[in-house]
Amino acid sequence: MKVSEVLHMNGGIGDSSYASNSLIQREVIFMTKAIAEEAVSDVYCSKFPKTLCIADLGCSSGPNTLLVVTQTVKTVDKIRKKLCRQSSPEFQIYLNDLPGNDFNSIFRSLPRVQEELKEEIGSEFGPCFFNGVPGSFYSRLCPTSTLHFVHSSYSLMWLSQVPKGVEMNKENIYLASTSPPSVINAYYEQFQKDFSMFLKCRSEELVSGGRMVLTILGRKSEDPTSKECCYIWDLLAMALKQMVSEGLIEEEKLNSFGIPQYTPSPLELKAEVEKERSFSINRLEASEINWAACGNKLYSCDDSFKDDGYNVAKCMRSVAEPLLVRHFGESIMDKLFHKYGEILSDCMSKEETKFVNVTISMTKRE
Amino acid sequence: MKVSEVLHMNGGIGDSSYASNSLIQREVIFMTKAIAEEAVSDVYCSKFPKTLCIADLGCSSGPNTLLVVTQTVKTVDKIRKKLCRQSSPEFQIYLNDLPGNDFNSIFRSLPRVQEELKEEIGSEFGPCFFNGVPGSFYSRLCPTSTLHFVHSSYSLMWLSQVPKGVEMNKENIYLASTSPPSVINAYYEQFQKDFSMFLKCRSEELVSGGRMVLTILGRKSEDPTSKECCYIWDLLAMALKQMVSEGLIEEEKLNSFGIPQYTPSPLELKAEVEKERSFSINRLEASEINWAACGNKLYSCDDSFKDDGYNVAKCMRSVAEPLLVRHFGESIMDKLFHKYGEILSDCMSKEETKFVNVTISMTKRE
Repeated sequence: MKVSEVLHMNGGIGDSSYASNSLIQREVIFMTKAIAEEAVSDVYCSKFPKTLCIADLGCSSGPNTLLVVTQTVKTVDKIRKKLCRQSSPEFQIYLNDLPGNDFNSIFRSLPRVQEELKEEIGSEFGPCFFNGVPGSFYSRLCPTSTLHFVHSSYSLMWLSQVPKGVEMNKENIYLASTSPPSVINAYYEQFQKDFSMFLKCRSEELVSGGRMVLTILGRKSEDPTSKECCYIWDLLAMALKQMVSEGLIEEEKLNSFGIPQYTPSPLELKAEVEKERSFSINRLEASEINWAACGNKLYSCDDSFKDDGYNVAKCMRSVAEPLLVRHFGESIMDKLFHKYGEILSDCMSKEETKFVNVTISMTKRE
Repeated sequence: MKVSEVLHMNGGIGDSSYASNSLIQREVIFMTKAIAEEAVSDVYCSKFPKTLCIADLGCSSGPNTLLVVTQTVKTVDKIRKKLCRQSSPEFQIYLNDLPGNDFNSIFRSLPRVQEELKEEIGSEFGPCFFNGVPGSFYSRLCPTSTLHFVHSSYSLMWLSQVPKGVEMNKENIYLASTSPPSVINAYYEQFQKDFSMFLKCRSEELVSGGRMVLTILGRKSEDPTSKECCYIWDLLAMALKQMVSEGLIEEEKLNSFGIPQYTPSPLELKAEVEKERSFSINRLEASEINWAACGNKLYSCDDSFKDDGYNVAKCMRSVAEPLLVRHFGESIMDKLFHKYGEILSDCMSKEETKFVNVTISMTKRE
């Protein structure tokens, strides 16, 4: 099992930390909503398919899982009404994540979601068929030429595996200003390999003229070790190093740990898309979101959301804990994330800290 | 939530009882294998579709869940090789059960199953895409005109709900020789309503010329209260009545309990299919399987499989316990099934006892 699978198989995360992770994901989905709407409108109006097939890749299982697909269904129905088309398409919806994802909890929430959709849209809208599709999105998931719209949010920065030679990265757990060129290359090459495989698989699955919108945690700069994408992991490495100095973690253990992630720039994405040749790019945008959005009070009345550093630590815990537990064991987690929260609080009180999202909207060439 | 949903949401069953239930299901799948093979061969050879779409309805989650679909894939590949067709179809496989089914455990077993398929068939066979489809098969599950082959084994005797007026059935928990005509009618009408809805939904989902093979626990006789289908429940009612006389269950509680099942005859199935008009019948067969097959020693080295009555009680427990727990509470279950086992042992030592399976193979009309 690859490390990234462990990460996706994020079963042991407490609710509160999950919630704080989901807040930022929710925010990002809303930020990129217009781009997704534009794409799905385009493909619907150019095809008017009897069945509109939509895939959400890396859907996870939580409060946001069905957000994008229900938005998409509503968008299509709005256009249909505007165009006075009587008959609604049927919706075939593929929810994908790794086999370890908690599909049971998604499936158990479906009857309620379908009821809500029916109430909001009205009875004349097309039936929605929901399917769980277990598997890695770095492999084929659906039959050839079947999908009209593919969406993925905050999933594609995860590599299929930790790049080779990560021991050369010493105490860094991700790329950093002190990473040797060989490590930077290894990360970039793994990204290229994975992302081009992703494009190849999706190009086979999408119909001609089909659309794909991806939002990926990334960076604006061309420097893969720039602070905007590395700082968040750098601070976690700092907490780990403190624990090494306290004798709680062996130095060797830290040196052999790496985060299987790559945060690409818009140009790096563009280069892969152009190399693969199946897609034309409609939009390619970078946006920013404050780390503090992890605890956006709009979405929570919970008192524990008051401290930003603590919130970000909770958010990152929900993402990174399975990876860390696998490598370092469970016992040090509370202490580690307490330290990390302190470090984050301190740093967020002194400087403005932001995540960069790169959103790319593409059309499958004829 | 309907009672039958509780039954399908059969999460709390111990492994051993599950295993004994799965033995008989496995046996039935092998008994009807030739009919399923014939049907899928026909549809493959008449269409040679680029993607062959297969649905298994009421797949549950256990050792047999993937048996039928992997058999089907192997059958198609065998024919393909025989016909010297170079390119294999892609397989789109829909695994359906109610939203409470344990899809997670199916999905976690998929990588292994896919690996085994690849090993057995060879690398040139088409990719298999597995989808979980949560929902009742008495409603639409898939887009219009997409399925080539629908299979369902040992699921369609379950009604969507307990028929109305079941209190009139007194101490009987299913149809029995002492059931009043109003109760017999209520059961039959519920079956007609459910099965015709099932046919309507599937006729919309299957392509013209698509095939469907259903195996249903049923009966040979035209009498719906005949012993061949009612005896197994009659003996459970006997155990319940003993507990009423011992003051462990209230009489009223027993009188308000009913099993949401109907075990149709071949002619009753035929009548519904002809009324609905979308399908022509290719085969309609009844077969028998000994109750004792619940503990077929071919499939088990477990010592607890030695007593037939005990095995059948275990088998029936895995099927009926969720329904019984919901109505009577958990505390009496061990005692109830101990009594049931005794009654079954006694009766199986004196007479030959068999389940009747009705298998129907149909083609969707052009």
